[in-house]
Amino acid sequence: MKRVLNFSAGPSTIPLDVLKEAELNLLDFKGNGLSIMESSHRVAMFEDVHNEAIALMRELYKIPDNFKVLFIQGGASMQFAFVPFNLAPNKKAQYVDTGVWSSKAIKEARIQGLDVEIVASSEDTKYDRIPEKIDFSDKADYGYITSNNTIYGTQYKSLPSCKNLVIDASSDVFSYVIDWSKVGLLFAGAQKNAGPAGVTIAIIREDLLDLAGQNVPSMLKYKNYADSNSMFNTPPTFSIYLLGLTMKWLKNQGGVEEIEKINAQKARLLYETIDAGFYKAHAQKGHRSNMNVSFTIGNGNVELEKKFLEEAAKNEMIGLKGHRIIGGLRASIYNAVSLENVKKLKDFMEEFAKKNG
Amino acid sequence: MKRVLNFSAGPSTIPLDVLKEAELNLLDFKGNGLSIMESSHRVAMFEDVHNEAIALMRELYKIPDNFKVLFIQGGASMQFAFVPFNLAPNKKAQYVDTGVWSSKAIKEARIQGLDVEIVASSEDTKYDRIPEKIDFSDKADYGYITSNNTIYGTQYKSLPSCKNLVIDASSDVFSYVIDWSKVGLLFAGAQKNAGPAGVTIAIIREDLLDLAGQNVPSMLKYKNYADSNSMFNTPPTFSIYLLGLTMKWLKNQGGVEEIEKINAQKARLLYETIDAGFYKAHAQKGHRSNMNVSFTIGNGNVELEKKFLEEAAKNEMIGLKGHRIIGGLRASIYNAVSLENVKKLKDFMEEFAKKNG
Repeated sequence: MKRVLNFSAGPSTIPLDVLKEAELNLLDFKGNGLSIMESSHRVAMFEDVHNEAIALMRELYKIPDNFKVLFIQGGASMQFAFVPFNLAPNKKAQYVDTGVWSSKAIKEARIQGLDVEIVASSEDTKYDRIPEKIDFSDKADYGYITSNNTIYGTQYKSLPSCKNLVIDASSDVFSYVIDWSKVGLLFAGAQKNAGPAGVTIAIIREDLLDLAGQNVPSMLKYKNYADSNSMFNTPPTFSIYLLGLTMKWLKNQGGVEEIEKINAQKARLLYETIDAGFYKAHAQKGHRSNMNVSFTIGNGNVELEKKFLEEAAKNEMIGLKGHRIIGGLRASIYNAVSLENVKKLKDFMEEFAKKNG
Repeated sequence: MKRVLNFSAGPSTIPLDVLKEAELNLLDFKGNGLSIMESSHRVAMFEDVHNEAIALMRELYKIPDNFKVLFIQGGASMQFAFVPFNLAPNKKAQYVDTGVWSSKAIKEARIQGLDVEIVASSEDTKYDRIPEKIDFSDKADYGYITSNNTIYGTQYKSLPSCKNLVIDASSDVFSYVIDWSKVGLLFAGAQKNAGPAGVTIAIIREDLLDLAGQNVPSMLKYKNYADSNSMFNTPPTFSIYLLGLTMKWLKNQGGVEEIEKINAQKARLLYETIDAGFYKAHAQKGHRSNMNVSFTIGNGNVELEKKFLEEAAKNEMIGLKGHRIIGGLRASIYNAVSLENVKKLKDFMEEFAKKNG
């Protein structure tokens, strides 16, 4: 069996242990005589899987009791519509613009007629940093940030203060210990750090569940998910099963505390190599992501970058092309990308620099 | 390996060939060195899977060129919100009420402020039939039906005429040959006849794509899915892969024409047994579903029905409990439930009737 080194921005690497357990149970789930994906969601066999996934998330991420854990569909982009529908009784919101994904979220709030104020932006330096000064006002219904920016490779190093802070954590959920006292709502598509595409996690402070108006569609109301344990209708059962297996794997790694240390180490190894001179990181120091390392060769040598990708592919390393918006190269090193594989990438990068420098 | 006989209403049986092919490729998709669920959706490896699933749907279901095939998330319940958002420029719609699922769809249209007229209903006879006379008016933006009613076991035997007919076909999609000249939009959650939960199919006539207003959220606009080949954001990649495998299996069965015949035969076998006297079908003759056979013992003998379920379980038959709203028993016999397994159920039912009659 061949396994490449997968540095895709998402969907991305899933732990091999997760895939192996899914494989073992694919035709016959634990002797029940059917696949978990063939099971009704209204029977104990599936409900146990569903509830165990939630319990593990609560345990590993230390989610306080006054937060609800929800499974939704549609990815983070669907959350861009949920947030203004649910959290803006006064139709007033504040956003921080750190790139494409926050810009899309801002657009959706405006489609719904919200008065949107952009309180801080890093657009002036091509989104190569997190804005220094973020002052959310109590007059807004909520304040919104994108905690990790996959394209530009930037990441918040601490969370700003806000009455009701909304965090799009799609690309760094479960990757570091979070201070829940600062959070109102955290959401994330699963397909980077928590499993396969097709399930979105929303972790919401209970008092925010009652802010939605009467004209919000039922399937876009967090409260309906909270009241039904995310079974308002058929949930994406197999994706939830794989998310649960990913949580078990994370527990075996020592939990979020341990993975945070490993993630920092992985990122440090790559930024060291980048800062040695041949490569150049997109993000400023102090703002760099531990999840997505975006870089160029020199200030963007298209020919050499093409050669880099070709030679990487020969070494079974995939997913290293940068996002089309900024070009260049990018290594996404989510939880499931091993330290060993990051070391192999580092070695490859150093050798490539030596040969072509 | 144990495999039970699964008569669940959904999620339900997936063809064994589909599960086996998924198992074989779970850790290493066709020698590419990664699982299909680990692949970016923006590379050829996944795009081929995605486009092949659509091509097979078009071929098997004979979808005309002026219809778009879309993959969405959120199930049919999310479609209840999509439909009024997208198809009602004049905020006027007509619905046929054939039970719980159409009632829910009606509720969502009203949440969005539509003027909803119920042009026909079978509520007066406990939804045991499809209303005889359905007159949609050209003054409404669209007319809406639920083609198969899982709870009551009823199914349309022909489609009513309507300028823009919307069909919730969640429980009978791909089960019979459809007359597309009568259809404006057909949607279906995949988890009954087309694969696992987590992907919803929408097949929409192109001229309907431009009716949505400016204030519709991006992720709830059919046009955004049509313009991006359903990759406006990350699609539910693994569910789409399994849907594609299910289409391949359907092709191997002889396509929709052949499965329609087998489905009719399966249903006939069970209704024969039911009409012999010990059991009683919920639906009137001429209105009965070929997908969900809802019945009671006598007029609802709770003790005997409990015994039936217990003995069925001992014979490895599961999912036969009726929906809580009408109680009793129900056998869901979607495309993937084999004729052989339906015959086994028939034999079991006849033996149970003999012993307890």
